[in-house]
Amino acid sequence: MKLVSWYAFVFLAVFSSTNAFSAKSIVIDSHEVPLPAAASPELRKSILELPSVAGFSLPTSAKEWVVLQDIRNKERSAGAEAIATALKVTIHRTEIDGVRVVELVPDTIKASNQNRLFIHLHGGAYVFGSGDAGLFEGALLANRLNIKVASIDYGMPPDSPFPAAVNDVVTVYKQLLKKFAPNSLIIGGTSAGGGLAFAAVHKFRQAGIPVPGAIYGGTPWVDLTKTGDTHFTNAGLDRILVSYDGMLRAAALLYASGHDLKNELISPLYGSFEKFPPAFLVTGTRDLFLSDVARMHRKLRASGVQADLHVYEGMSHADYLVVANSPESIDMFGELDRFLQTQLVE
Amino acid sequence: MKLVSWYAFVFLAVFSSTNAFSAKSIVIDSHEVPLPAAASPELRKSILELPSVAGFSLPTSAKEWVVLQDIRNKERSAGAEAIATALKVTIHRTEIDGVRVVELVPDTIKASNQNRLFIHLHGGAYVFGSGDAGLFEGALLANRLNIKVASIDYGMPPDSPFPAAVNDVVTVYKQLLKKFAPNSLIIGGTSAGGGLAFAAVHKFRQAGIPVPGAIYGGTPWVDLTKTGDTHFTNAGLDRILVSYDGMLRAAALLYASGHDLKNELISPLYGSFEKFPPAFLVTGTRDLFLSDVARMHRKLRASGVQADLHVYEGMSHADYLVVANSPESIDMFGELDRFLQTQLVE
Repeated sequence: MKLVSWYAFVFLAVFSSTNAFSAKSIVIDSHEVPLPAAASPELRKSILELPSVAGFSLPTSAKEWVVLQDIRNKERSAGAEAIATALKVTIHRTEIDGVRVVELVPDTIKASNQNRLFIHLHGGAYVFGSGDAGLFEGALLANRLNIKVASIDYGMPPDSPFPAAVNDVVTVYKQLLKKFAPNSLIIGGTSAGGGLAFAAVHKFRQAGIPVPGAIYGGTPWVDLTKTGDTHFTNAGLDRILVSYDGMLRAAALLYASGHDLKNELISPLYGSFEKFPPAFLVTGTRDLFLSDVARMHRKLRASGVQADLHVYEGMSHADYLVVANSPESIDMFGELDRFLQTQLVE
Repeated sequence: MKLVSWYAFVFLAVFSSTNAFSAKSIVIDSHEVPLPAAASPELRKSILELPSVAGFSLPTSAKEWVVLQDIRNKERSAGAEAIATALKVTIHRTEIDGVRVVELVPDTIKASNQNRLFIHLHGGAYVFGSGDAGLFEGALLANRLNIKVASIDYGMPPDSPFPAAVNDVVTVYKQLLKKFAPNSLIIGGTSAGGGLAFAAVHKFRQAGIPVPGAIYGGTPWVDLTKTGDTHFTNAGLDRILVSYDGMLRAAALLYASGHDLKNELISPLYGSFEKFPPAFLVTGTRDLFLSDVARMHRKLRASGVQADLHVYEGMSHADYLVVANSPESIDMFGELDRFLQTQLVE
């Protein structure tokens, strides 16, 4: 097409400084990246104090995975009651059709949310966050959105790899549909929790079950392969995930347990999205998953689904949870609240 | 706040591989970034063939600027008539209250757009793109949106630095308001053109002039300083702009001509956005301006303004114009069309 070369020629000739490109890949020289000047003081302080996670050895057997999971989950679980108290959220541990579910009830429920339920799916790369260890985001959602939350403690590998998590969500969702109108249900979470929400909705559609009123995709892990551009461009910049090469790849393979990583119930990005519910998507400029969240946004929009994308300056993966007292975090949950109030019209 | 440290501790302990952080900055080691696998074949082919712009010397005097501008603009102008013919757009060169304006009329005008006008402001870092050299995007808008376009050939440095460009837009806009309802006017463009659109709306508000119905911000240059995170994280990755250090800084200083770069009429991001019209924003994962576009999105939303953000996989600055035949480009103009049809309700 003539347009392209003409425009490219004259446009490109205009700018520039150095040429750091080779043929099929770009070589980026070693360089320093300062703290994000336009991020909030809270976020910058957190990056300064906790610039990156410390490395540790990857498990090499099911037994080693369980040992690591127990250590991590115990650390997280220990503070759960105190956090819930601080957030004025009451914890009710229950079971629905054999699946553990934790109800998180805020001290105040917004009038418009009286008949609504937020189905929360915790993060942790499908390997961490079971039991009380997965409750933090759910409690935060209950507190900030003034809505009742049901956090599903879905099965995880090595004992219960894919499709256990998806099946557990379907099991609970079917029971909840007996008490709630589909449009009164919101499903979502962060990272693996966000990815699982999209995967579950694929499954609902396959099974002919009505879809919920909205999906919350907090930097959702919608592609378990290393395909998205920011897996390469934000490697080392994302202080939370750091890189696909390590725990993420190991967790993806453990979870998939021999299934194709591009199965739409594992990497929901590869499914089709006709008649999906409205989706709220959030990521950050340093997020390893920025590309994957942006790709999900495009696929939803291309299918005519209402989907809003929010990108926060200087944020790594899930920094709105890591720095929960930051203006970015408060702004994000405020946006999510407005999104739900707008989309969940009866 | 207790929440933060608790969550950060347990969350961060979960992931990781390497630690590439020092105290106040992150050191990113030299590394190769492959072609974006999930971008379209058209975009990848373009990146492969034209990985980065060639460097050239910066002008050091007004005379040298004019020489460079003449060369660049002549190159671009040469193809303008052929492009317009290919796009089935008729060019009418006119003048409104002393300012040169080019009307671009498509062969078909959509019924809903019959009484509407797209006020186009060309890009070129406030130093390039005058005359016919700035018409490509305007012609593309006319063709793809089936709407009449008026492209303002605003004054530029070294002869006419800030505030000439803003004043020229105000002059033309005031005349257009005599013929069009404010809500039938859309203003916008790419890069400097997008930034100038936001700056002009600040000026309209200062002057008590009704604002237009919508703003199109194509990776708009809304912050002429080097503040946004992606000025650092995407330097060398953005094949179009490459880096702030070079032509962008020189152009910013020439345009501002001694005024504060954070003046809201120069870097409109630093203004306030109450009662701004709905805004459509587009950028890419490799865009040097990604952070600035995301920051603009946040500021607009925080002021209660309807603002939609679209981020395209693997796209550098303005790649939807550079690779105008790509699915990304076609998708983007389709989104812009739908946005206008939704927002410009009488």
